[in-house]
Amino acid sequence: MLIENKIDLQAMGRAAKVSSRQLGTLTTLVKNRALLAIADALEAQAGAIMAANALDMADGRAQGLSEALLDRLMLNQKRIAALAEDTRRVAALPDPVGADFESRVLPNGLRLSKRRIPIGVIGVIYEARPNVTVDVATLCLKTGNAAILRGGKETLRSNIALVNAIQGALSEVGYPANAVQYIESPDRALIGELLRLDAYVDMIIPRGGAALHKLCREQSTIPVITGGIGVCHLFVDASADFVRALDVIENARVQRPSVCNSCDTVLVHRDAAGAFLPMLAERMSDCSVELRATGEALTVLTKDARGARVIAAGPEDFDQEWMALILGVKVVDDVEGAIQHIYAHGSEHSDGILTNDWRNATRFVDAINSSAVFVNASTRFNDGGQFGLGAEVAVSTQKLHARGPMGLEELTTYKWVCLGDWHVRE
Amino acid sequence: MLIENKIDLQAMGRAAKVSSRQLGTLTTLVKNRALLAIADALEAQAGAIMAANALDMADGRAQGLSEALLDRLMLNQKRIAALAEDTRRVAALPDPVGADFESRVLPNGLRLSKRRIPIGVIGVIYEARPNVTVDVATLCLKTGNAAILRGGKETLRSNIALVNAIQGALSEVGYPANAVQYIESPDRALIGELLRLDAYVDMIIPRGGAALHKLCREQSTIPVITGGIGVCHLFVDASADFVRALDVIENARVQRPSVCNSCDTVLVHRDAAGAFLPMLAERMSDCSVELRATGEALTVLTKDARGARVIAAGPEDFDQEWMALILGVKVVDDVEGAIQHIYAHGSEHSDGILTNDWRNATRFVDAINSSAVFVNASTRFNDGGQFGLGAEVAVSTQKLHARGPMGLEELTTYKWVCLGDWHVRE
Repeated sequence: MLIENKIDLQAMGRAAKVSSRQLGTLTTLVKNRALLAIADALEAQAGAIMAANALDMADGRAQGLSEALLDRLMLNQKRIAALAEDTRRVAALPDPVGADFESRVLPNGLRLSKRRIPIGVIGVIYEARPNVTVDVATLCLKTGNAAILRGGKETLRSNIALVNAIQGALSEVGYPANAVQYIESPDRALIGELLRLDAYVDMIIPRGGAALHKLCREQSTIPVITGGIGVCHLFVDASADFVRALDVIENARVQRPSVCNSCDTVLVHRDAAGAFLPMLAERMSDCSVELRATGEALTVLTKDARGARVIAAGPEDFDQEWMALILGVKVVDDVEGAIQHIYAHGSEHSDGILTNDWRNATRFVDAINSSAVFVNASTRFNDGGQFGLGAEVAVSTQKLHARGPMGLEELTTYKWVCLGDWHVRE
Repeated sequence: MLIENKIDLQAMGRAAKVSSRQLGTLTTLVKNRALLAIADALEAQAGAIMAANALDMADGRAQGLSEALLDRLMLNQKRIAALAEDTRRVAALPDPVGADFESRVLPNGLRLSKRRIPIGVIGVIYEARPNVTVDVATLCLKTGNAAILRGGKETLRSNIALVNAIQGALSEVGYPANAVQYIESPDRALIGELLRLDAYVDMIIPRGGAALHKLCREQSTIPVITGGIGVCHLFVDASADFVRALDVIENARVQRPSVCNSCDTVLVHRDAAGAFLPMLAERMSDCSVELRATGEALTVLTKDARGARVIAAGPEDFDQEWMALILGVKVVDDVEGAIQHIYAHGSEHSDGILTNDWRNATRFVDAINSSAVFVNASTRFNDGGQFGLGAEVAVSTQKLHARGPMGLEELTTYKWVCLGDWHVRE
């Protein structure tokens, strides 16, 4: 019975651009008032949101989505309350917009500074989880950016309900109407159209798997923040404290296996292999982690597996982001061998060395240019919350603009402000 | 007789990536030694460079290139000496690479900082002027980046001679061989191939006209720094000092008409129009600047042109980057009118207000998010040298990474360095 409205992305882009110009000059007080109104609206409309979510869940079940996916999709009273709390937390964070930095007076008296401003209009393309809708919308609002959102088709009704709550709250406090817009259609062609909306959209953030990132890189005429794919390494140097190394590896692999900053491969110094690998096997066996080993590591582990499931690694196993309780294991000659392996197989996300050797630690940190490089710490720390940014919109593994966790400041840019006394250039 | 070598861009990319990993850990002393060797080589090989340039010039003349283009193409002893001097100046600049910043210790004791690192491999696509070859190569070397260069076909032989001098100097001081590579073929298909070399190239800088920027935005799978296109405005508020405003406008329009930070349109407050426009006409007439006026401005100027050539502006004249002694003129109601005109027609490069009114100055600076915003100063200041950056590789008008003049620091990025004491995440 429903006739789907034709989505006019050009009009959405124009409207977002117009809104973004108003948003950029709003005070922090006004922005926080809007965020608190959103938190209240999420709680007040929890019933409608859960009803919409139930329809998405029913469809998901009928389509045979996995229990893990269904769990990511699901919204209940508690999760909605958590979204409201997160929104209040964003309101409480410091606002980076408007601050002047790197101010100076040129020899000719021209007063120069950089001023932090919103990026403008941000397009976010994401999969499954509906909480991303609220996360991204609130972080964009706090930084004065307009957002155009495109979530996964499995959560379309949940997302529409969440965006209704957000937009209702915004209009209630007299906020620019198109600060947050949602592409209310599962039509995949709209993603391609959004990616070419460079007349209006300043930045694209994909949140999803490797295929989505590749699509964005290839089709977008707008700058894309790529990231989120982590083939992460820990190198166990001969000088490492083996017992403490086991704790770090367990934390990096096991604490949350399906996230991008979890450890996929352990590289072991040749001199440590005989003693350390069986200890590693025992600990991984305790944690139900399967090992994929090659060469000398496979030889040692085959002799002394301590109950661990050990499988010979295939040729592409060291390029895998496992997202599961699986760990690649390989012996390398020394720190240089570890560095070369990471150059060949890493994704420049999170890589670390476990060592007590000053020179090796220094060399590793100098040579590895991943978004975060660790000495004697778990790769799991590469996260906006852990790094103290207060929030995180994405983890960037590209080289421009921002690297690692992107918080509020990374959703801003700057302009040069030049105050003269009728200065002319010589 | 010459059989052209097949250019293998994949191999060039791989080689650049390998080199970039060595370059990133070189000391400033080593990098400066290489730069000084390049300066010496340019001077020593001036004869060979000029001989190659003479062939390019002869071809250019035969093909009927304009005198202006031929002048940009031409290298003589003096210009080569200037390139060598510029290279020595880059050697003398501070090296931004390696510094830690925003260091902190997290509550759990994890020691965290951002460390400045090279971007990696930079692809630069440019037109006409051969001096860009030396500029870009030296700025990339100073910041530890590898460069893959692609200049215009009109300067192919000049560029090859310059790159030979650079590469010879690098090999003499034992520098990584593929730090600077040049695509030695006029085949345009190679540009498309370079733009998709995302496995090896981290950033693309186009230096040329709007068509080149558009091509890069549309075809590149690598982040592109767009910029260099300036439709720049000065708004003359009713409260401006008219005589000093004329000096600023003259400087912004006339000093160097063909550059991106020159002023294309003057917007005049309605209350100032009757008095100011004839003064503007007189000054522009003195400077041989043709005026393109519309509406009330056209009416006033037609009555009292003071010898200036005044033409009715066509519908797209206010979207022009004139690159010539032409100036658009329009009357606006007030500062809001000026802001709306700039939103509709500007390119977010350089825009300014000429005023003595505090509120209007503040509103203009708040509302205009161009890469540089000016109060009572010429748009010509939006330049790396003028802003004190010491060098400039491009002027960015996009929102990510860097805005306005890009110097050495803007050719770097950062990684997070996290030093732990066997820290695991809770």
